[in-house]
Amino acid sequence: MPAGDHAPHSPRTTVRRGAKRATYDPADIHGILADGIVAHVAVVTEDGPLVMPMVYGIAGDTMYLHGALANSLLRAGGDAEVCATVTIVDGLVFAKTSFNHSMNYRSVVVRGRARVVTDEGEHVAALHTITEHIVETWDTTRPPSAAELRATRVIALPLDEVSAKVRTGPAVNEAEDADQPFWTGQVPIVTVFGAPIDNADASAGVPPRVAGLEGRDVHGDTRSS
Amino acid sequence: MPAGDHAPHSPRTTVRRGAKRATYDPADIHGILADGIVAHVAVVTEDGPLVMPMVYGIAGDTMYLHGALANSLLRAGGDAEVCATVTIVDGLVFAKTSFNHSMNYRSVVVRGRARVVTDEGEHVAALHTITEHIVETWDTTRPPSAAELRATRVIALPLDEVSAKVRTGPAVNEAEDADQPFWTGQVPIVTVFGAPIDNADASAGVPPRVAGLEGRDVHGDTRSS
Repeated sequence: MPAGDHAPHSPRTTVRRGAKRATYDPADIHGILADGIVAHVAVVTEDGPLVMPMVYGIAGDTMYLHGALANSLLRAGGDAEVCATVTIVDGLVFAKTSFNHSMNYRSVVVRGRARVVTDEGEHVAALHTITEHIVETWDTTRPPSAAELRATRVIALPLDEVSAKVRTGPAVNEAEDADQPFWTGQVPIVTVFGAPIDNADASAGVPPRVAGLEGRDVHGDTRSS
Repeated sequence: MPAGDHAPHSPRTTVRRGAKRATYDPADIHGILADGIVAHVAVVTEDGPLVMPMVYGIAGDTMYLHGALANSLLRAGGDAEVCATVTIVDGLVFAKTSFNHSMNYRSVVVRGRARVVTDEGEHVAALHTITEHIVETWDTTRPPSAAELRATRVIALPLDEVSAKVRTGPAVNEAEDADQPFWTGQVPIVTVFGAPIDNADASAGVPPRVAGLEGRDVHGDTRSS
């Protein structure tokens, strides 16, 4: 997946290490973001950097994030520089020497100024987007109350400065290791949804969309297609 | 998994949001670190926070990390405040209202001062630890050359200031939603190793330990036992 005609978005999102695996193509970036389920979001606190997992959703060129860090960001004054990284590990790569061991993965790094969403319409739309990032359930749940909306902070991050890195395929061994008497290859990692488990207080059957998750690749490219 | 007798390690690693899911028990923390495969590591750069995935290994009370960020840390002068977060997503949790949707997960947050490993003996031992975090392959590969060792930066992070959060079990619904006519429950996420794929230049059969990965839960607790 070469960078092709797509140039880096900014100096601070130009991939420096392993640059041949970099891509700045919006289609690649949006595909990875569609296939991920959690972003690791970093902020700078007075105690140093802090990174925590957050759930997210994508609407156009905006990444909406929800999680424990949203409250920290709000306390910090609303707008703050953040970095959100989404990583999907697709497999282990074994070379003939551990120096060349690797992983197959897809990752996206977003850097920018986060904004706490305060507009009521955007807030509800953002929660809808985050809720349905993996599977559509908004219309098979009770709509949020005003108090619930107030208690659910969402931050918005523009997808203006983004880079992605992708590694696929076999191990790359040194030519001088050709005669080394060792195995080399890959072990894929497959992440799948299991069968739904009913809560004791369920008052209806499993919605078809949720039932349809079973056996599906969590990080497959079905959601991005 | 209550915090029990284990107090928070420091103010900056005291869990504030969702504190009832927090644990500071070293056994819980080491179990999660044993079951994870990638850490998201944040540093503060002159351009703001930056978070990238790194592979890691645990030796005693030290976390060793390797990845693209190690070079950035070295350029920054060696020692720097970092935050390393390991997250395992175990399932989706569907409530009767999206406000109560959640995920089942295990996560560990480590904060501290990272040190670039310069001692030759510690460096080799750290690479051995990182290489074998998932599966033992050191003795079925060619040992690293001096040049390879020089090219492989490793950073060490003390496990002194660490917290963990764990969510398990069913959705938690409001009592007032008991009569809402909706399904509620969980969908597990299962991550497994697939069958090994030989490289074209493999010169031996798949080592038994690598072959034994097939079908195993990547994030199961077999490694920590």
